[in-house]
Amino acid sequence: MTQSANAALQSVIWAGEHLDLLDQRLLPEEIVYLPLVTVQDVWEAIRHLKVRGAPAIGIAAAYGVVLGSRDIATDAADWLTSVKEAAAHLATSRPTAVNLFWALDRMTARAESLAGGEAELAALKRALLDEAIAIQSEDEETNRLIGEHALELFQDGMGVLTHCNAGGLATAKYGTALAPFYLAKERGIQLKVFADETRPVLQGARLTAFELHQAGVDVTLICDNMAGMVMSKGWVNAVIVGTDRVAANGDVANKIGTYSVAVLAKAHGIPFYVACPLSTIDLNTASGDLIPIEERGEEEITEGFGKRTAPKGVKVFNPAFDVTPHEYVTAIITEKGVIKPPFDVNLKKLFDL
Amino acid sequence: MTQSANAALQSVIWAGEHLDLLDQRLLPEEIVYLPLVTVQDVWEAIRHLKVRGAPAIGIAAAYGVVLGSRDIATDAADWLTSVKEAAAHLATSRPTAVNLFWALDRMTARAESLAGGEAELAALKRALLDEAIAIQSEDEETNRLIGEHALELFQDGMGVLTHCNAGGLATAKYGTALAPFYLAKERGIQLKVFADETRPVLQGARLTAFELHQAGVDVTLICDNMAGMVMSKGWVNAVIVGTDRVAANGDVANKIGTYSVAVLAKAHGIPFYVACPLSTIDLNTASGDLIPIEERGEEEITEGFGKRTAPKGVKVFNPAFDVTPHEYVTAIITEKGVIKPPFDVNLKKLFDL
Repeated sequence: MTQSANAALQSVIWAGEHLDLLDQRLLPEEIVYLPLVTVQDVWEAIRHLKVRGAPAIGIAAAYGVVLGSRDIATDAADWLTSVKEAAAHLATSRPTAVNLFWALDRMTARAESLAGGEAELAALKRALLDEAIAIQSEDEETNRLIGEHALELFQDGMGVLTHCNAGGLATAKYGTALAPFYLAKERGIQLKVFADETRPVLQGARLTAFELHQAGVDVTLICDNMAGMVMSKGWVNAVIVGTDRVAANGDVANKIGTYSVAVLAKAHGIPFYVACPLSTIDLNTASGDLIPIEERGEEEITEGFGKRTAPKGVKVFNPAFDVTPHEYVTAIITEKGVIKPPFDVNLKKLFDL
Repeated sequence: MTQSANAALQSVIWAGEHLDLLDQRLLPEEIVYLPLVTVQDVWEAIRHLKVRGAPAIGIAAAYGVVLGSRDIATDAADWLTSVKEAAAHLATSRPTAVNLFWALDRMTARAESLAGGEAELAALKRALLDEAIAIQSEDEETNRLIGEHALELFQDGMGVLTHCNAGGLATAKYGTALAPFYLAKERGIQLKVFADETRPVLQGARLTAFELHQAGVDVTLICDNMAGMVMSKGWVNAVIVGTDRVAANGDVANKIGTYSVAVLAKAHGIPFYVACPLSTIDLNTASGDLIPIEERGEEEITEGFGKRTAPKGVKVFNPAFDVTPHEYVTAIITEKGVIKPPFDVNLKKLFDL
């Protein structure tokens, strides 16, 4: 399956009888959708990183449960057993993926509640498929709302810089930080996006530049070290990034390099926005210095392109993330709206509602 | 020829009867010295980028003139003709290399002045070789003085970050920005160097990390976007970089990314030093905005490692340099000493002496 040009690419598409999954391992060179017909197909796709991004993995797994239980033709008890077996199997595909377990638990709980009722087997299956569709559409709706709120901050003609990839490929659709760009494109609002390539793993080049270019968004790829120069020329009116975790005080953990971008933005008087769903805000983490920073293998830097680019034996520092203190954050954009400082007060209010 | 570990690598070594040239194209994977015996060997080494860095190219060419004229056994007139022919030929090897022409002119002028005298042919040849050796040793001395002055600014135990490569490989020895690291190593002063890898061409990874590691200097390689995080941890006490041109007001043109580093340094209260010989200071350029910034091909960013890492057709911005305004420069370190603001006054004084 292929998609037409200028459409936002979706990672996971329910095709009526099977799942079409974009093989992200082949990006940006090839756009190939894999038809997944069995639960084992889904297991292998998750296991072998054909699908990445926590929400997208959760969505794929939810459909995997549907595929793993649809052929039961006996009774509700057998069907529920097959649902549980499919979920248990899928849970082994990526043992550290939180969204995977969340989605599988939700599907299993739904099946249990359905199986206890009076409905026919076909109706049970249909209702479980609706649950998978709901997981996907809720994620899409969350991202669309984030995009709506973010777009209020941007005007036609603005330049916006982003770092790493918080895009549609990792989610049901739109992504978080990239959501306003898709909505702007749909509405004819011209934004000029600068995408940091994001060393060492180049998510900005391979994914952000790819998916925005594919969708017809005006995107220019730069190396990370060009962000300051591009800002100094007056080409950047705002920065927007995603995040892996927001602490209760508004400190933001995100892909390495985000902090440098935030400091550069502040030095140039450019607002720095962070986009995320409420589920990423962790009120149990008081501040960013409590967030553990994973250090990754040096080969990502020394031979990340299949070719050695640094001397053997040299010391390498490769933190996967950094923490941007809340003083650098102009606003945090969630599905519930734009949150401004003081974050310690205003983030908490989000959950009190 | 190979050098022992923990010795600063030299690009160009006069070996008595021939030139040993470090093949920089093979770095950092292999350290191979090519024996150059004829003027044509030197021409090809320059042409095919086995030697890079303006001073190193000039030095290699000076020895090339020696190699091209040493076999003349008739008289001083024939010898002078062969010198001029060798110089004219070498001048075609890299048409835009200013140091190349400067070195060739100096060698030719020296030969002309020698040939007009009474000396024997062997003495002429010896004197011309001395001129090539002088070009090399003067460059080394300039760099050593830069290193001495820079080292006054550093104390034992400090962390120092550098960007790109202003090192010994590009010069006779020591380099400019890297000179203090070599001198510190010679004297047992511990400095902890952080080398930005310097996308897109990775001179920091391929050359700076390589030559410092080779010399036994404590060097840690990072991606460009990690500089801010490393500074925020308090690991960096100073930044030192080289430069391609300093304007009369102290604005500094250097490899892309230098400006970002300067802004980050200022935000963290870290001094930002620029090291260069007087020949790099251009009083005829009033300010940095008059320095043209070369834009290079997008393939350096999209497929710089022999592997495509960005989508085809995406827009790319690839400036080779940026300009750091003088407000960000703490001091400029030359062979005549450490120059502090106001640069418009103090740089001019350097040349009035």
